[in-house]
Amino acid sequence: MSTMSFSVFFRRITLFLFSIFFTHSISATHIRLSSDHDRTPEVLSIVQSLPKSGGEITFEKGIYHFYPDRAFEKFCFISNHSDEFTRTAFPLLDFKNLTIDGKGSTFIFHGVMIPFLLENSENIEIKNVSIDWEIPFHSQGKIVAHHTEENAFDMEISKEYPYEIRNGELIFVKDYLEHNMHEGILFDPERKAIAYNTRRYTPLALEGKVKSQFGVKDIPYEYETDPRTALHWFRGKEHRMHVEEIKPGLVRVFNSKKALPPIGMMYACKGDFTNNRIAPAFRLNQCKDITIKDINIYHAGGMGFIADNSENLTIDGLVIEAHQGRMVSTTADATHFVGCKGKITIKNSAFSHMLDDGVNIHGAYQRIVEILDEHTIGVRMGHLQQMGYEIAQKGEKIGLVNLEESFFPYQELTVKKLEPVNKRYHKITFEEALPKSVAIGQLIENTDKTPEVEIYNCRFTNNRARGVIVSSPRKVRVHNNYFSTDMSAMFFVVANKYWYESGSATDFEIYDNTFEDCVYGGSNHGVIRFHTNDPSPLYAFLNVKIYNNEFIHFDNRILEITNAENLLFEGNSIQTSNTFPKLFPKQPVITIQRSKNLTFKRNTYLGTAKEMIRADEVSTYSSDFKSPVSQ
Amino acid sequence: MSTMSFSVFFRRITLFLFSIFFTHSISATHIRLSSDHDRTPEVLSIVQSLPKSGGEITFEKGIYHFYPDRAFEKFCFISNHSDEFTRTAFPLLDFKNLTIDGKGSTFIFHGVMIPFLLENSENIEIKNVSIDWEIPFHSQGKIVAHHTEENAFDMEISKEYPYEIRNGELIFVKDYLEHNMHEGILFDPERKAIAYNTRRYTPLALEGKVKSQFGVKDIPYEYETDPRTALHWFRGKEHRMHVEEIKPGLVRVFNSKKALPPIGMMYACKGDFTNNRIAPAFRLNQCKDITIKDINIYHAGGMGFIADNSENLTIDGLVIEAHQGRMVSTTADATHFVGCKGKITIKNSAFSHMLDDGVNIHGAYQRIVEILDEHTIGVRMGHLQQMGYEIAQKGEKIGLVNLEESFFPYQELTVKKLEPVNKRYHKITFEEALPKSVAIGQLIENTDKTPEVEIYNCRFTNNRARGVIVSSPRKVRVHNNYFSTDMSAMFFVVANKYWYESGSATDFEIYDNTFEDCVYGGSNHGVIRFHTNDPSPLYAFLNVKIYNNEFIHFDNRILEITNAENLLFEGNSIQTSNTFPKLFPKQPVITIQRSKNLTFKRNTYLGTAKEMIRADEVSTYSSDFKSPVSQ
Repeated sequence: MSTMSFSVFFRRITLFLFSIFFTHSISATHIRLSSDHDRTPEVLSIVQSLPKSGGEITFEKGIYHFYPDRAFEKFCFISNHSDEFTRTAFPLLDFKNLTIDGKGSTFIFHGVMIPFLLENSENIEIKNVSIDWEIPFHSQGKIVAHHTEENAFDMEISKEYPYEIRNGELIFVKDYLEHNMHEGILFDPERKAIAYNTRRYTPLALEGKVKSQFGVKDIPYEYETDPRTALHWFRGKEHRMHVEEIKPGLVRVFNSKKALPPIGMMYACKGDFTNNRIAPAFRLNQCKDITIKDINIYHAGGMGFIADNSENLTIDGLVIEAHQGRMVSTTADATHFVGCKGKITIKNSAFSHMLDDGVNIHGAYQRIVEILDEHTIGVRMGHLQQMGYEIAQKGEKIGLVNLEESFFPYQELTVKKLEPVNKRYHKITFEEALPKSVAIGQLIENTDKTPEVEIYNCRFTNNRARGVIVSSPRKVRVHNNYFSTDMSAMFFVVANKYWYESGSATDFEIYDNTFEDCVYGGSNHGVIRFHTNDPSPLYAFLNVKIYNNEFIHFDNRILEITNAENLLFEGNSIQTSNTFPKLFPKQPVITIQRSKNLTFKRNTYLGTAKEMIRADEVSTYSSDFKSPVSQ
Repeated sequence: MSTMSFSVFFRRITLFLFSIFFTHSISATHIRLSSDHDRTPEVLSIVQSLPKSGGEITFEKGIYHFYPDRAFEKFCFISNHSDEFTRTAFPLLDFKNLTIDGKGSTFIFHGVMIPFLLENSENIEIKNVSIDWEIPFHSQGKIVAHHTEENAFDMEISKEYPYEIRNGELIFVKDYLEHNMHEGILFDPERKAIAYNTRRYTPLALEGKVKSQFGVKDIPYEYETDPRTALHWFRGKEHRMHVEEIKPGLVRVFNSKKALPPIGMMYACKGDFTNNRIAPAFRLNQCKDITIKDINIYHAGGMGFIADNSENLTIDGLVIEAHQGRMVSTTADATHFVGCKGKITIKNSAFSHMLDDGVNIHGAYQRIVEILDEHTIGVRMGHLQQMGYEIAQKGEKIGLVNLEESFFPYQELTVKKLEPVNKRYHKITFEEALPKSVAIGQLIENTDKTPEVEIYNCRFTNNRARGVIVSSPRKVRVHNNYFSTDMSAMFFVVANKYWYESGSATDFEIYDNTFEDCVYGGSNHGVIRFHTNDPSPLYAFLNVKIYNNEFIHFDNRILEITNAENLLFEGNSIQTSNTFPKLFPKQPVITIQRSKNLTFKRNTYLGTAKEMIRADEVSTYSSDFKSPVSQ
């Protein structure tokens, strides 16, 4: 290929920061900075004029503002988000071989938008861009006083978080949305991290039971209902806490059930679940060979990066952190992957200040609700944020799971047709006849769409929730990372009950990481935690190796093991820090339940716990730990 | 065509009422009647297996229940409804030559469904079906006591309308939705009609201003905002009325601003606008040659029949009425047509107990917000329930309207391309260059999509709002109908401000109708009313002829004329009834504003008004009325 044809192929379009843009004749009430006009129509027009075979878009370094009002719109079902009409200036739909290079630019978004929307695209690279929102999706207020006689605390709220009080309920009002005080947590502004033991104070018990209800319990239903939909969630509840304004920017919050939040802490909240995950920074569906590189995400109204049903994804140099006095970066996970395959690589990145996990990689469970004929089942989406999720394409393998017998599929079938009847209920027809053992209530998962995963040179700090959750039966390596998270640093889970995230582990290694002061938010959990929603005598997590890691922990419990088989914990060093007082001083260093053939060897314990290993009667393990008491 | 091939062509599928249907193994909490299992999957499967070239479905006479849980789902933008994922057992998409004959069956729906969803279909007939909902979308309670010292009234609520009280707000709870007390009105159960002078008592002023607000007014906006979206509508408001339960099924409602509703009246409400128009009985889009015949609609959570962008529609023998103690039939208009063409025929029908108009036929205005190049404009949907409305297809004519100069388009252009960028903002490119006179703020309307209309042998009674609204420049005939509506029986309107419904009249005749006791709800309007949103000296309604009608009216005003030219009112008889006390006894029989060349001749006045015609200075008319005082 000659240089000429190369340059034609990679058509380069440079956007100039101060180009004249003639839609500005619209009247607006926005007080404009020198360069904060809407660039959406211009950028959208360029994206839409690119050939689908590819190209490159580069930006002159600068600040670009994007508004939803004249943005491209598309309805999207997005895993673990509200399903919605999303708006974007970058609808990267059905593209191949595309590079977007921000050249260090900052893109500032306004309202409910998705900065980068990728669907059915292949070989895409997005790099050198900082993503931020002018008005954030969360709100925050500083605890400044206690009134113990009234069981109330005062909260100081800055002008960046406008509010109004409606019948005692504090509502934060934004340009394109509003939210209440729900899903809040304390941050410690000095540490710029989740507050130590925040669960003593949060979440606030904002709602209580209604006092009058008539006939509601007699309403008939033909089918099961979902208590987590907005319709059922709010039923029977009313506000039990209330808020009064003391003076502009200072409110008093009454009637907390928990301890009054410590003075100096910052209460940060994103409102109830109905619209607090609506604007992820990157959203991928049915994509392949996607790389994002050298990206900053200062804020997003949802996850930083959410990929559904995609293949070979690389995140390199993604920094997620809050800035400019904000406590919160992304209002949900930093990165999240559902039903992905190929290899997921996350490296050289740092994830801070999120309101949820750092990395979460899993498949989806769906529940069999009907056996329609010899080849066809009807399935129900378990979690309301999985609505519309198409679990498989023609030719892919579906595993039938009976959790009473095994965490792993007992049979695989080949998908002939998936019929999405409605967003909650799909029909799936298989090439093969259904086995006799299939029954209503069993689960299905896609056994083809499981990824190999490598996560290294990353930092997971100062966020709510976990560092890394990976559920995949393929090769998973997590190494050379640093963790300091308010819940468990790593979480192995079979989430068949609430989230319907399919999980297991069979080739998982964790090595050369540092875990420093995790689980400080008040959960009684291990730094590394294994968990199944249903207590089960079966083994879900096989052959996990945890070696050569350093644990520096203010509290005792490092490992919380359940349902594991052949786990190796070797060559790790453990010491106790004085960062915080211990929250659960009676816990041992390691707890073991319903597990077998665990090996603990050549570890160094320099901590202050009084008990090393506490195992239930059914578990088996070997250990060369010396008693901590003797040290 | 032989009998054999005929019967093959019209494939007949009979559904047997008691056929065994094997999905019933799903656990459910519904207490089942003998035949109230869900027939949706079975019917859906039959509809989907029909050839698109047509066929016939007949039902054995009986009661069929339909639930949304396993129904077909499709996102629909529906004019004057909430845009939504709709569910249906009858997705009549892309069909030709289809007949559905209920043979007198009753279809009972549950929750948010559209009984008949027709898109891109042609030559469809649906007949002999009664449509009802198990649990209605409205709620009602009887006024049983006054407590004047507390400014409160008591309301008795039956078990059919379960409720709970959340922080003083009464919430009616249903199987698939809930609603508050908004959009309520009084019915008189004895007359089974809207209560006389209900506007003295309703709508209730449920909301007042919030007492505390901080920074909200300083929120910046780049583009105009819509005060009628949920985001802005509720901003700055809180509940000012409150409700307490006295005993189960009896609540006390405090703090009304208006007079206490009379004891014995029934308060019926459908909740605020965010979700009170979600389940119309018939929804058509881009259809042609559609007939519905001998249909009863006992209830619907929206309109009875809403057609967008369709052609040649016949409604014959449609009876809409509430039954079984319910006050409300459809929670919105009986029938509504937007951007339709060809001929609309409505005959032999009766429309009662709706919460909105009987017939409303109009086009849509959209506002020019950008001039993008010599051929292209950007337009904004004016009303939030017009989101996503595609005003024209390639080749259709768009009229440019400057209401400061004329109610009629000053130029027509041919659509080359419509680009629906997002649901609020579309781009339209024309074959011709834009004229120099085009300007931001002007309106557009589709001049091809205007229908000929004939409405006869119909009854419009006992509903909230109007009887017939038709805005079309083509031939319109309304004759041999009976009207008794709580607002104007007929309404001529240019609704450019709020509803963005385009309107005019140029060949409109009203004859041989009876208008008996209309406008009894408390509006100070004429039985036949002309109105433009903006006071204008221009003429919108040309050549309207009103003749040989009988007006029997408890009040004085028959005609409220504005912006009319060449109106003829001839051979009508008018008398006064004693049904109600007059509400506006100082009004004359006819008021005239901003009109010219009106003729009143050979009418008979046997009423009791003291003044016949009150005209403004600019209007011109001739009349042979004798003074009513002399009679």
